[in-house]
Amino acid sequence: MSDDSHMHCCNDADNSNDSNNVGSADLTALRERIAQAVRDVKARTPLAQSFTNFVTINLVANAQLAAGGTAAMSFLPDDVIDTASISGADYINVGTLLPFYKDALPQIARAFRKTGHKWVLDPVAAGIGKTRTEILRAFRAAPPTIVRGNASEIIALATMWGLISPDEASRPAGVESVDEVDAAADAAKTLAAFLAKFAPNGQAAVAVSGAVDLVTDGERVYRLPGGSAMMAKITGAGCSLGGVTATYLAVAEPLVAALAATLLYNRAGEIAEAQSHGPGSFQVHLLDALWNLTPEQIADSPIR
Amino acid sequence: MSDDSHMHCCNDADNSNDSNNVGSADLTALRERIAQAVRDVKARTPLAQSFTNFVTINLVANAQLAAGGTAAMSFLPDDVIDTASISGADYINVGTLLPFYKDALPQIARAFRKTGHKWVLDPVAAGIGKTRTEILRAFRAAPPTIVRGNASEIIALATMWGLISPDEASRPAGVESVDEVDAAADAAKTLAAFLAKFAPNGQAAVAVSGAVDLVTDGERVYRLPGGSAMMAKITGAGCSLGGVTATYLAVAEPLVAALAATLLYNRAGEIAEAQSHGPGSFQVHLLDALWNLTPEQIADSPIR
Amino acid sequence: MSDDSHMHCCNDADNSNDSNNVGSADLTALRERIAQAVRDVKARTPLAQSFTNFVTINLVANAQLAAGGTAAMSFLPDDVIDTASISGADYINVGTLLPFYKDALPQIARAFRKTGHKWVLDPVAAGIGKTRTEILRAFRAAPPTIVRGNASEIIALATMWGLISPDEASRPAGVESVDEVDAAADAAKTLAAFLAKFAPNGQAAVAVSGAVDLVTDGERVYRLPGGSAMMAKITGAGCSLGGVTATYLAVAEPLVAALAATLLYNRAGEIAEAQSHGPGSFQVHLLDALWNLTPEQIADSPIR
Repeated sequence: MSDDSHMHCCNDADNSNDSNNVGSADLTALRERIAQAVRDVKARTPLAQSFTNFVTINLVANAQLAAGGTAAMSFLPDDVIDTASISGADYINVGTLLPFYKDALPQIARAFRKTGHKWVLDPVAAGIGKTRTEILRAFRAAPPTIVRGNASEIIALATMWGLISPDEASRPAGVESVDEVDAAADAAKTLAAFLAKFAPNGQAAVAVSGAVDLVTDGERVYRLPGGSAMMAKITGAGCSLGGVTATYLAVAEPLVAALAATLLYNRAGEIAEAQSHGPGSFQVHLLDALWNLTPEQIADSPIR
Repeated sequence: MSDDSHMHCCNDADNSNDSNNVGSADLTALRERIAQAVRDVKARTPLAQSFTNFVTINLVANAQLAAGGTAAMSFLPDDVIDTASISGADYINVGTLLPFYKDALPQIARAFRKTGHKWVLDPVAAGIGKTRTEILRAFRAAPPTIVRGNASEIIALATMWGLISPDEASRPAGVESVDEVDAAADAAKTLAAFLAKFAPNGQAAVAVSGAVDLVTDGERVYRLPGGSAMMAKITGAGCSLGGVTATYLAVAEPLVAALAATLLYNRAGEIAEAQSHGPGSFQVHLLDALWNLTPEQIADSPIR
Repeated sequence: MSDDSHMHCCNDADNSNDSNNVGSADLTALRERIAQAVRDVKARTPLAQSFTNFVTINLVANAQLAAGGTAAMSFLPDDVIDTASISGADYINVGTLLPFYKDALPQIARAFRKTGHKWVLDPVAAGIGKTRTEILRAFRAAPPTIVRGNASEIIALATMWGLISPDEASRPAGVESVDEVDAAADAAKTLAAFLAKFAPNGQAAVAVSGAVDLVTDGERVYRLPGGSAMMAKITGAGCSLGGVTATYLAVAEPLVAALAATLLYNRAGEIAEAQSHGPGSFQVHLLDALWNLTPEQIADSPIR
């Protein structure tokens, strides 16, 4: 299943509210690391490998290339594990599952854990289908470095892994249309802290996509406004954001990678919306904008 | 296999011949129901789930989103059957088959029949390959609500199900280039009447794509002129029309859904052809036109 | 895996150096056969069937349609072998493998050999993964008519089949960034000569994609300058070139098909680069250019 409820809705490009929970000196340093990650991808064209769904696999590859990286897609454990030795990071998206994934995906996750290989998980449609649930549960013992999803996916995964109680998980349902990302803030923070315990160098991140995106490393929480409502009118905005997050993860620490990718997508979405006349031309302009945005344009975006 | 012989060829936007076999009062009422279906999709963004081929799966999802619906794609019976409980209708396209589909697809069709879940079948390449034939034969016992295909696919399916004699089926072959859709008119009507017997509320439809498209509920036959010959120069025009038919079926009765989707595609094809310089830009403009066409523009199209 | 290192870098449209290793009378005759192949595809819309990866399957089909052919994609041996009886040539690309391909692909290759059916192989990522290596090794006993790949893939395949020694294979590694295609010239020639021994009418070809593309029938070596560096910034330039090569192979001898497809892509890449603002619009303009280029524009391109 590929359900793309990834949505952005505002065009608030004002970054005067930046210092909400982040010291401004810290933020300046963080912005420099974001700009450096974007520069490094453009200079080094790192390989990020993907095991992703069939609906948006082409857009994932094209978005990674447009951001400056290179792409390789595979589904066979022998192939994926071989290629991981030359890829800077991997991306796993549990959208359209085939029967053999039930064994293949946990096997791959265990191999990544053994070698300390960094990877991004997109838990698409978490909570739907017995096979998907089994796979996502299995990842608990060999978890990713970054999880990127929408609010309900993040809550479903954190619940599935026993990190938050089903009570907490069910509470936000009523407010989902109003403020869905904030409803997942605690789940995201708890999940990121859990991932960090397993991460080779103790660093991890969770990114929640929504009207105002949220990124956390388990300690600090950053909110990233902006983007375009048209993102929800093409398939694969969220999936390809996950892929590009892996591209940045190949050259940067998890928090910086998650921030850089989300900021890039928000800016590219705004540009594409202004230039397009519908979802067909929106996707074309989105890929062009991913290619043309500069490290500075990305790093100087609003962060609260 | 994904064989896209779906073709439209005329630009006859004149609807003066509307009353061929349809009373004009009936037609006015029908047009209002078509406009309402288009409005309902835009207002409610219904989910239509697809089990479709790998070639055009991205275009199917993007076309459903552009028409105003939402999309979810899946191949695992547990996933598909779970998701069907929240989808307004499903779409099954037998293009690129994998070995496990032989059991999965009949299992899914039986589950839909048990719950009275509405679905659209695109019998791509009907008649080619032993596995596809087995799957299509199995659907006879748990049939779809709508079948959409080209003339030879409709004839092949009706023959396979024993609804028309192989004699009838072979007769039209000689005239296929001249008037292929009309050659399938009897097969389409017979097939629609058969589907209606199984349909939860006794309503079904068959849509035959061609130079002048044909839609029937088993009693009346409607002919829809227009569209663009460029439709046959991109892959997935027919597949995505099937997906959008499922989107409309989520909010409307089968005849109205089949008419609305086909009319939308004919108008969008004409607009895209006028604006494009080849098949690359045609697809971009097609998606934009699917997004921008109004309920009135769609419903006021020529119907004979 | 779909690794698209297919790259073109120059815009040298000057064909004054044409007569490097080719007599100018021969070249004039060759150009006429190339123009005729392009004309024949546009007139006859031949079917070329593909068994290809999930990343770029949509672009392969759309490129074949844009070049004037028709497309059908399949993965089941019964389906592929049935359809091959009505397709002019087939295309096999070993990008994203599934477990059942290990048996299916050799079975299909043997069926093609038995009936003398022409096909193009794209040995994507040759050398990576146990399953891919087993499949590529198996093709040695039932080889394709044309192989198209980048320099390292051609060298890897020729080594795997024991046509060149591992010593020869490892030598060019050091110079890959400078002149990678020429490093594969001997491997390509040897491979083409091997393929020709198996080919129904004793004719075969190998195409190596790079800054200056190389095509050989095992005797003569042709170099084709031009194209666009943006080809490496979209996924599927190489894969879809392989598919279009199969489209031309449906109407022409292998050398002419490989030359026509590569020349078409170089010219289309140059046009698309001049018209686009990034990889999103590049792909749109590429498909439009594949559709609009004339037989003469393609055949009159520089050949050395």
